[in-house]
Amino acid sequence: MKQNNYCVIMAGGIGSRFWPFSRNKRPKQFLDFFGTGKSLIQMTVDRFRPIVPMDHILIVTNVIYKNLVLEQIPDLKESQILCEPARRNTAPCIAYAVAHIKAMVFEQVTGRKMQENEDVDWDDDKMNANIIVAPSDHLILQESAFQQVIKKGLRFIAEHDTLLTLGMKPTRPETGYGYIQMMPGDDSLRKVKTFTEKPNLELAQVFVQSGEFLWNSGIFLWNLRTIRHEIKKNLPDIANKFLAGEWMMGTDKEEEFIQGMFPTCPNISIDYGVMEKAESVHVLIADFGWSDLGTWGSLYDLSEKDEKQNVALKCQAHFYESTGNIVALPEGQLAAIRGLKDYIVAESDGVLMICPKSEEQQIRQFVADAEVQGDGKYN
Amino acid sequence: MKQNNYCVIMAGGIGSRFWPFSRNKRPKQFLDFFGTGKSLIQMTVDRFRPIVPMDHILIVTNVIYKNLVLEQIPDLKESQILCEPARRNTAPCIAYAVAHIKAMVFEQVTGRKMQENEDVDWDDDKMNANIIVAPSDHLILQESAFQQVIKKGLRFIAEHDTLLTLGMKPTRPETGYGYIQMMPGDDSLRKVKTFTEKPNLELAQVFVQSGEFLWNSGIFLWNLRTIRHEIKKNLPDIANKFLAGEWMMGTDKEEEFIQGMFPTCPNISIDYGVMEKAESVHVLIADFGWSDLGTWGSLYDLSEKDEKQNVALKCQAHFYESTGNIVALPEGQLAAIRGLKDYIVAESDGVLMICPKSEEQQIRQFVADAEVQGDGKYN
Repeated sequence: MKQNNYCVIMAGGIGSRFWPFSRNKRPKQFLDFFGTGKSLIQMTVDRFRPIVPMDHILIVTNVIYKNLVLEQIPDLKESQILCEPARRNTAPCIAYAVAHIKAMVFEQVTGRKMQENEDVDWDDDKMNANIIVAPSDHLILQESAFQQVIKKGLRFIAEHDTLLTLGMKPTRPETGYGYIQMMPGDDSLRKVKTFTEKPNLELAQVFVQSGEFLWNSGIFLWNLRTIRHEIKKNLPDIANKFLAGEWMMGTDKEEEFIQGMFPTCPNISIDYGVMEKAESVHVLIADFGWSDLGTWGSLYDLSEKDEKQNVALKCQAHFYESTGNIVALPEGQLAAIRGLKDYIVAESDGVLMICPKSEEQQIRQFVADAEVQGDGKYN
Repeated sequence: MKQNNYCVIMAGGIGSRFWPFSRNKRPKQFLDFFGTGKSLIQMTVDRFRPIVPMDHILIVTNVIYKNLVLEQIPDLKESQILCEPARRNTAPCIAYAVAHIKAMVFEQVTGRKMQENEDVDWDDDKMNANIIVAPSDHLILQESAFQQVIKKGLRFIAEHDTLLTLGMKPTRPETGYGYIQMMPGDDSLRKVKTFTEKPNLELAQVFVQSGEFLWNSGIFLWNLRTIRHEIKKNLPDIANKFLAGEWMMGTDKEEEFIQGMFPTCPNISIDYGVMEKAESVHVLIADFGWSDLGTWGSLYDLSEKDEKQNVALKCQAHFYESTGNIVALPEGQLAAIRGLKDYIVAESDGVLMICPKSEEQQIRQFVADAEVQGDGKYN
C-alpha cells in the first residue's frame, strides 16, 4: 500500500430514484440494499482499505450527511469528511478534494501547513500523489477483481500523466449508462476515442455489438499533477476559486471558506467539464460485476429471482398469479401478492409505493407530491 | 332504562377475511377500522349503554380474547365476560348466555344464589327478562335510529312471547347476506314467512325488487321465557347440557363446568338451530346504515371514495392512473400507487397484502401459507 495513494469517495447524492427506500434524510449510499448488514458506502470504503491508507480516504458529501457518514464509518476522522454546502455536481466536488489533497501532500512532504500565497513547486515529483475517485453508491460484486484493476490503474497513472477511467465490459444494450469508445488495441488499457451520452436502444445495441464501447463507470484514477493541470486548463474559473483558498485546507479556516465559495461554483460534471476535453484520457477495461444501481429496474435485473421471475429483497414474499415483480419491504415483513405483473412494491419508513417497473420514471412525481403533503416527512 | 334488560354481545369471531388487518391475536371486532379511535366492539357496547344497565351487558368471547375485552372496555367486570373454550357457532354461545342470565335474574329476584337441583318456577313473570343479542363486529352508522329500533323491539318482546330479529331494508342485491321474507302488513313489525340462505345474484335481485325481503342482521331480541322454551324444544341436547350446570353460573364453579361441557356442544348456528324452527318469529324492519363488514369489498362499498373511486382508510394515499382500489395502511403512512385497478392494498403489523377485489376469497389461502412460514407471527 503506497503512502501517496489517496481515495475520494463521492457521497453527495440524494438518490431520489429509489424512493421510498432512499429518502432525503437517508439517501441510497447509506442504505443496506441487500440485507448484507453493510450500506453501499460502507462497502465502498471497505473495498479501498487494502489499497489506500485509511487516513487518505476522503468522503465528499453534503453537510447534512456528515453525521451519517461518521456513524456508518466510525474510523474516519471528521477532517476526512469534506462537506459541500450545496449540490454542484462532480466537477466542483472533485476540485475541492484535489485542493484538500494538495494541502495534505504539502504537509506530509514538508511537515508543516502551507502559508497564504506561498510559492510551491507543484510540478516537483515529490509533490505528486495518486488519486482514485469513486461514487459511494454503486454495487460491485467481485471485490478482489476490483482491487486488481485498481492496482493496475494506480501503477499506470503513477507513471503516466493521463486521466484514466474504468470502462465496464457491457453485458446488455443498457440505455441508462453513458458509453466510452476506445481506440483499437490488444491491451486492457486503451486510449479513449470518444465519450457518449446515454444512447437509445438501437444505438446501444450497435455499441455493444461493435465491441469498441464500454460502460462509463464514473470511477477515475489520475495523479495529482495531471488532474491539477486539467482542471486549471478546462475549468479555470473553478480552479481559481479553489487556488485562492488552498492554504486554508486542513485548517480551521477551511469550513468558512468553502461555505462562502462553494455555492458560487457552476453546476458541472467532471465528465463534461474535464474528461471530454482533456488531452490524454485512457480507459482500463474492467469486469467485476458492476452496477450503478440507478433504478429499481437495474436492481431487479441484478437480483436473484424465483421461478416466476419475482424478486423479494430483505422480506418474505408469497406470490400468487404474479410474475416479474420486485418487492422490497422492511426486514422481517411478509408480503402476500396476487395478480401483479412487472411491478415495483417498495416500502420504507412509513411510505409504500406500488408502480409498474416500466413506469418508474414517475417516481419523481410521487416524491414531489409526497413532499407537498408530508411537510418533509415522506420525501 | 329497564332493570330487566340484558344485552349479549357475541365477540368470538376470528375475522380471517380481513387479514392482514384482522389477526388471530386481534380479530376484527377489536380493530378501529375507520380511524375513529374506537374499535367495533367498543362502538357496539357504547350503543347499548343508554338502553341496558352496564352490569347487564355480557360479552361472550373466546377465552384467548378475555384480556383484550377487559383492556378495550375497562368498565366491564370480569364476571361479565363469558369465555368459550372452543368455537361452536352462535347456538351454544347464546345458550350459555341464557343460562348465565337466568342465574343473574334469580339472584336479582331472590337476593341469593340458586342451589343445585333447585326447583324454580321460571314461567313466573317475575323471572322474565328482555334480552338483546348482537354481534360485536358490525358497523352501524346511525346510532340514534338504532336505539329507537331497539327500544321498539324491547317493548314488543316484553309483551309477546316471540323471537324478534332485526331485518335491514336492502339497498342492493347483496349476495353476501341471508334474507328474511316477511308476511304482508303495514307495520314495521311483521311475522316472518321464511329465512333464506345467501342467494345468487339473480335471486337477490328478485328479492330486492319484491319488497318482501330484508337482510338478516343477526341482531335478535326476545324475552328469557321464550328463548328458554325455544332452545329446549329445538336444541334439547344443548339445553340439557346447560340446565345441568345452571346453578353454577356466576359462581367459582362456572369456569370449570364450561371448560368441560362447552366443547361437547355441537357446532350449530342460532338461525339454523332455532330461528328457522321456532313457532313464532317476528321481524322488525330497520334502516340505520348497517353492514356486517364481512369482506373488504363490503368495506369498500361503505367507504367514502375519491373522484377516481379509490378509498384510503386511516392513511394518506396518492393514486396515479388507478381506480376502484381500497388501501388500508397503518395510521400516518403514505401510499403512492400507480397503475392499479380494483385492488385491495392492506398492511398491518408486518404483513402487506395486495389482491384484486374480485379475488378476495383467496385471502384464506394467503393466511394458510403465512401460517406455515411465520410460526404464528403472520396469521
